[in-house]
Amino acid sequence: MTPSVTISEVGPRDGLQSVDAVMPTEAKKAWIKAEAEAGVSEIEVGSFVPPTLLPQMADTAEIVAYAKTLPDLDVVALIPNLKGAERAVAAGVDKMSIPFSMSETHSIKNVRKDHPAMLAEIKAIADLVAAQPEGRRPHFEVGLSTAFGCTIEGPVSEDQVARLAEAAIEAGVAEVGLSDTTGYANPAQVTRMVRQIKGVIGADKLNTLHLHNTRGLGLANVMAGLEEGITTFDASLGGLGGCPFAPGASGNIVTEDLVFMLEAMGINTGIDLDKLLKVRDIIAAALPGEPLYGFTPDAGLPLGFERTAA
Amino acid sequence: MTPSVTISEVGPRDGLQSVDAVMPTEAKKAWIKAEAEAGVSEIEVGSFVPPTLLPQMADTAEIVAYAKTLPDLDVVALIPNLKGAERAVAAGVDKMSIPFSMSETHSIKNVRKDHPAMLAEIKAIADLVAAQPEGRRPHFEVGLSTAFGCTIEGPVSEDQVARLAEAAIEAGVAEVGLSDTTGYANPAQVTRMVRQIKGVIGADKLNTLHLHNTRGLGLANVMAGLEEGITTFDASLGGLGGCPFAPGASGNIVTEDLVFMLEAMGINTGIDLDKLLKVRDIIAAALPGEPLYGFTPDAGLPLGFERTAA
Repeated sequence: MTPSVTISEVGPRDGLQSVDAVMPTEAKKAWIKAEAEAGVSEIEVGSFVPPTLLPQMADTAEIVAYAKTLPDLDVVALIPNLKGAERAVAAGVDKMSIPFSMSETHSIKNVRKDHPAMLAEIKAIADLVAAQPEGRRPHFEVGLSTAFGCTIEGPVSEDQVARLAEAAIEAGVAEVGLSDTTGYANPAQVTRMVRQIKGVIGADKLNTLHLHNTRGLGLANVMAGLEEGITTFDASLGGLGGCPFAPGASGNIVTEDLVFMLEAMGINTGIDLDKLLKVRDIIAAALPGEPLYGFTPDAGLPLGFERTAA
Repeated sequence: MTPSVTISEVGPRDGLQSVDAVMPTEAKKAWIKAEAEAGVSEIEVGSFVPPTLLPQMADTAEIVAYAKTLPDLDVVALIPNLKGAERAVAAGVDKMSIPFSMSETHSIKNVRKDHPAMLAEIKAIADLVAAQPEGRRPHFEVGLSTAFGCTIEGPVSEDQVARLAEAAIEAGVAEVGLSDTTGYANPAQVTRMVRQIKGVIGADKLNTLHLHNTRGLGLANVMAGLEEGITTFDASLGGLGGCPFAPGASGNIVTEDLVFMLEAMGINTGIDLDKLLKVRDIIAAALPGEPLYGFTPDAGLPLGFERTAA
């Protein structure tokens, strides 16, 4: 099993875009700073979508610039298309990620592009990245969204996901991640799909899982991913943003619970749990009334809990 | 991995003893009947403790007698001591289980018995069972409680747990189960401890895990147990009873989420999920205002979900 893993905090993007309130820029900065100081080494700080669509993300360029001043932090942004990629490159992100819906129905409905159109967009972005001077090329990743099933189509063919992953790599992306956008995944499916895709595109080109806890299986799915060599897990502090399909359930897996599980198992995350647990206060103060999730924050750490990591 | 597992529903005992309200006997019967009809094959229906201590359990003998009339159901009761065992045997239970706290401090505080005194009690109960005529001998199991850590002592020695498991088997019990009473367990610890104890007492004498979801790791711990050949998992419908250490968190893992995970993975539980999800209505009606937990009941089953079990 992996001796250390990377937690990629996606709350400032995925969490904030799912709540109606707009978090003030200074609060976003305080959140990102506090979480980086707790040892989180990768944070998805925003999304380069049109501000008219998501006013919560209007300050993403400023947030990227700020986050880039923090030491030892990989600054990630989500991009919906080539235009967003141009803005992300200009802002100087370390990494950018585009969601690519494995359910073609979902893709057409969501971004009005079928699979060939999405692959063309991905290739254009990969070309943009390749055209940047060395040292200014962000890492470019495709997130295979709705990979475990779709709320419109239902089950999504696992062979199709593997084929589209291969097509994305051929289009020039550095790696793909697997996203359980709908909270449909189960551990056996995670095992199967990670194996199949790694088999097709190479073991080093699938390193990230983006899991949801919609049906309570988030951390069980992490276990399956760990055993297949996944080294990066997305998570959201306080499960911010909730799950539109399940009132009372977090959408993304909760960073605090994930870090507790890994550290308790002796898997090094580089994160100081006590510091991490205090970061919630920043969100709670900036978004009053917004529900935060997580079991470990409520229950506290076990008596005598020690990091057993090497 | 195990192709089929047994879910042991503990809500009518563990859940009900943790809520203040006393569920009417007829509602308990309706619950047990509905859950048995959904395919649950083992239910811990009550506890033979003095009714002065737990009025919620005063009707356990009547509930056992009723549950015994249901087809294909193993009827389990918890017993605190020899006196309780005598009542359980008289009531005709199929299986009885005594909690044996691995933390001696917890044991003394909880039942005023140190480890030697508990082992003497366990031996007396094993002798009682052996003295019954064939066909009237209940299966006798010891639940190794606080096995993953104690809220008073903190960490509990894993070697000590293995030694006490061995001593319980030597005292004459048929098998032991491992209980994460405090919600301290993590998947690596589950793997280690199941392996160690099976190594000491024999692989066939540890088949059951009783897991809590206090810190959100319940189903991840199930995954670890499955991989070590555990075949029976305790769970509570709706997570009834909550967790005294964590407001908002279920104590026991939630039956509905556990069954969803296993069935989604193609592991046969014999349980009809749609029927199971409807059983919650009985509890909600009988215990108005009592919080029920679970992600799958809120989110519903995935679109196009099919049991993949053979």
